[in-house]
Amino acid sequence: MKAPIAHAEQLSVAQVAALIDHTLLKPVATPGDIKQLCQEARQHAFATVCVNSSYVPLARQELAGSGVGVCTVVGFPLGVCATHAKVAEATWAVAQGAQEVDMVVHLGLAKAGDWKGVAADIAGVRRSIGKALLKVIIEICYLSDEEKVQACRAAARAEADFVKTSTGFAIAGATVADVALMRQTVGKKLGVKAAGGVSSWQEAIAMIQAGATRLGTSRGVQILAGRPGGAPAQKPGKGSY
Amino acid sequence: MKAPIAHAEQLSVAQVAALIDHTLLKPVATPGDIKQLCQEARQHAFATVCVNSSYVPLARQELAGSGVGVCTVVGFPLGVCATHAKVAEATWAVAQGAQEVDMVVHLGLAKAGDWKGVAADIAGVRRSIGKALLKVIIEICYLSDEEKVQACRAAARAEADFVKTSTGFAIAGATVADVALMRQTVGKKLGVKAAGGVSSWQEAIAMIQAGATRLGTSRGVQILAGRPGGAPAQKPGKGSY
Repeated sequence: MKAPIAHAEQLSVAQVAALIDHTLLKPVATPGDIKQLCQEARQHAFATVCVNSSYVPLARQELAGSGVGVCTVVGFPLGVCATHAKVAEATWAVAQGAQEVDMVVHLGLAKAGDWKGVAADIAGVRRSIGKALLKVIIEICYLSDEEKVQACRAAARAEADFVKTSTGFAIAGATVADVALMRQTVGKKLGVKAAGGVSSWQEAIAMIQAGATRLGTSRGVQILAGRPGGAPAQKPGKGSY
Repeated sequence: MKAPIAHAEQLSVAQVAALIDHTLLKPVATPGDIKQLCQEARQHAFATVCVNSSYVPLARQELAGSGVGVCTVVGFPLGVCATHAKVAEATWAVAQGAQEVDMVVHLGLAKAGDWKGVAADIAGVRRSIGKALLKVIIEICYLSDEEKVQACRAAARAEADFVKTSTGFAIAGATVADVALMRQTVGKKLGVKAAGGVSSWQEAIAMIQAGATRLGTSRGVQILAGRPGGAPAQKPGKGSY
């Protein structure tokens, strides 16, 4: 979903779950941890699991038949590896079953104001992943407002599907104000993913009201459990248990 | 240099400079920042500059004829991208002129005790970079002493040239005790690189006394300037100025 969502305050647990990339990117996460992540994603019918690229084959296997997608990250979390490396990682991950790719922009070129270079880096990945969904992480905490706008425009020019606030590995994550600025910049054509620090139902709804159409968080289960009115965090599993 | 260095306390400024990878890996570093790094490396005759892979072509160009090498990082800083991605990044960087490659181990497999998997990931990169120097970052702050030993052994089995303590992007960097443990584990066959937080002449010498044969730091100029006796930080440039 790319265009903003109206009446976010009325969303059900299941509707919010369907906006969440259930995320585990810590470098010490083991194969066992990834299996548990996938089990939770089946149970709650999250949009995807978001895992480092080495775990794409395992996640695809664990989620077979579940309807939950596999999202991976590319050039993560610094964004300053060579475009060649990003393309190779993205191409491989999609071939292994990833349907969504969250790449980090080249922050050094962004800080130098080289927006053509930033867009070319994104376009390289775009061309390499066919119809897979491409989200571009602009790492807002390092950018001025003007740079945030320019980064979103570069992502749009390079035909990304989403802009995303943060990696979760830098000095700060998503803010409502930045989600609103990113939404204002990309209009209805691109989605906006809020990531990094979203940890309660109230924060999730506030991000959606500001224009987010996807949430990246490791706290999805906790978010759903926090819906006012005591709605159950667990909807009936549609997978193997 | 791989085998330990005797009488570290007697090393000259030039001898310590020749052990330093002059490092700038911050994601917001611009091409201009990399040029300045290279200028400093020429001036002080550091061993290499260590830069993110997108900057390898620029660093090679800036350092032409200087005798200073180009070192890059692979799978950095998390180590949990796919082996395929690490191999592609390393191969490309070496083709572009990097002589040294610092790769991060797969920390998730390490924490799961899958040392065969850890070694296979390293061996994939080893096979792809010919005679380029391979350093394996084990990110000590996440590992138990037993895991540190196992990670060093996996690097040795996979024919790495060096083991390296840290990325500088995790919760802690090199310690003297860990350098000593790594040296004890690899003997004289591999080098040991201390990285992350080394910032004074005294710390540098302590690391070398513990067995380090390379230092990764962004504070090389400051380290040289701190030599007791007030030795000049700048040796005569052998490059273009």
